[in-house]
Amino acid sequence: MRNLKLTLEYDGTEFHGFQRQRGLRTVQGAIEERFSRVLGEPVRVIGAGRTDAGVHAAGQVVSFATSRPVPVERMAGVLNAGLPGDVKLQSCEEVERGFHARRSARSRTYRYAVVEREAPSPLLGRYALVTPGPLSVSGMTVAARPLVGRHDFRAFQASGSVTMTTERNLMRLECRREGERLWITAEADSFLYRMVRLVVAALLAVGRGELEPEALAGALATGEAPAGARKPAPACGLCLLRVLY
Amino acid sequence: MRNLKLTLEYDGTEFHGFQRQRGLRTVQGAIEERFSRVLGEPVRVIGAGRTDAGVHAAGQVVSFATSRPVPVERMAGVLNAGLPGDVKLQSCEEVERGFHARRSARSRTYRYAVVEREAPSPLLGRYALVTPGPLSVSGMTVAARPLVGRHDFRAFQASGSVTMTTERNLMRLECRREGERLWITAEADSFLYRMVRLVVAALLAVGRGELEPEALAGALATGEAPAGARKPAPACGLCLLRVLY
Repeated sequence: MRNLKLTLEYDGTEFHGFQRQRGLRTVQGAIEERFSRVLGEPVRVIGAGRTDAGVHAAGQVVSFATSRPVPVERMAGVLNAGLPGDVKLQSCEEVERGFHARRSARSRTYRYAVVEREAPSPLLGRYALVTPGPLSVSGMTVAARPLVGRHDFRAFQASGSVTMTTERNLMRLECRREGERLWITAEADSFLYRMVRLVVAALLAVGRGELEPEALAGALATGEAPAGARKPAPACGLCLLRVLY
Repeated sequence: MRNLKLTLEYDGTEFHGFQRQRGLRTVQGAIEERFSRVLGEPVRVIGAGRTDAGVHAAGQVVSFATSRPVPVERMAGVLNAGLPGDVKLQSCEEVERGFHARRSARSRTYRYAVVEREAPSPLLGRYALVTPGPLSVSGMTVAARPLVGRHDFRAFQASGSVTMTTERNLMRLECRREGERLWITAEADSFLYRMVRLVVAALLAVGRGELEPEALAGALATGEAPAGARKPAPACGLCLLRVLY
């Protein structure tokens, strides 16, 4: 069997998340169904990140085993041909047998997009949270700093997740304004269930002046979500940017 | 009767263009239906630009008359409430009785977005043409220059249009690379049917080296579309940016 590593881009709006679910349109379901048909054998893929419903990806990685001898340089074209317009392969490469899209990953980088605007924006709102501004980026930056490093992030985990430990290594958490966008970028070895969106919600509360910057470090210490930031930020603003191995 | 001027933003993907058509989902149809219901009187709007199916708008302007005494500062909120997510008002102001969104307009600015990339992009492809690059921006700029000014643009008009004259004043036509995007911006008093997308198609052919830069000026002179650029560029890349009065 050959082992293939694919990089995927998708618009999450019309998907019920990455993970296969019976009777629902999911990214995994769509690509497995398509790959199985094209390759003429049942395909099961492993994804690096289980993005939620509505979350986008510019660089999701999946791996799968196949016995088919399609040359790797033709594979992306062959597999893309039948995929719907909202999910497409960016690249395909052959990898060693031990490669596992989820377990082999060293880090995941997510980016959250915010547009500071009073009026709703049909054009920007598909890939960003549109919210009245201005937000205090300096306050958000101060709030973000103490979260970087290896910590117990259970204060930023939604219920319904099953995980061995709630300790994670957050390598980067940055807030940056660029033109009309405000980007929040987070990189970690892996993330707890809804962790990015819960951290973003807390940072936005700080940006709006509803929460003290110290509240995030406080939440880490107590293991309790910061008051007023217990609801994850909307999915539409989030994008899985890249996975490193 | 009061006369109102509204600025609209919409994602054109799911609309059969701006203009009302029986049995089809159009921007005009959607807003007239909604405004009529909210205001409790039949509303007919006048649009500044009749964008085609799939074309977006960040600053479409419409005007309409109403007898309702809703304060103008509350109007945008009231009218937005029931609009679908892909079309929203950005602002609303009361204007003099003689104001007419189409006839009073001095210029329309359209912007066409191109992303130079081999692989298809579900995230960028909704609002841009994704096409293999690199395109020669300098060649496109040379090709664009002689089109600026008052000319007979019948070479860049799709059939099926009804217009008194094919002379237009093109005030600006610029190609500019910004990050991973290439923007083509066109401003004119008004545009012929599909003129922007036909000019863009010719510019892209120049950018790819399929057409000499001089071919665009040649087409103006002969009134014949440049060979190899007779099909308008895809609608998804086009956006009506603003209308000046």
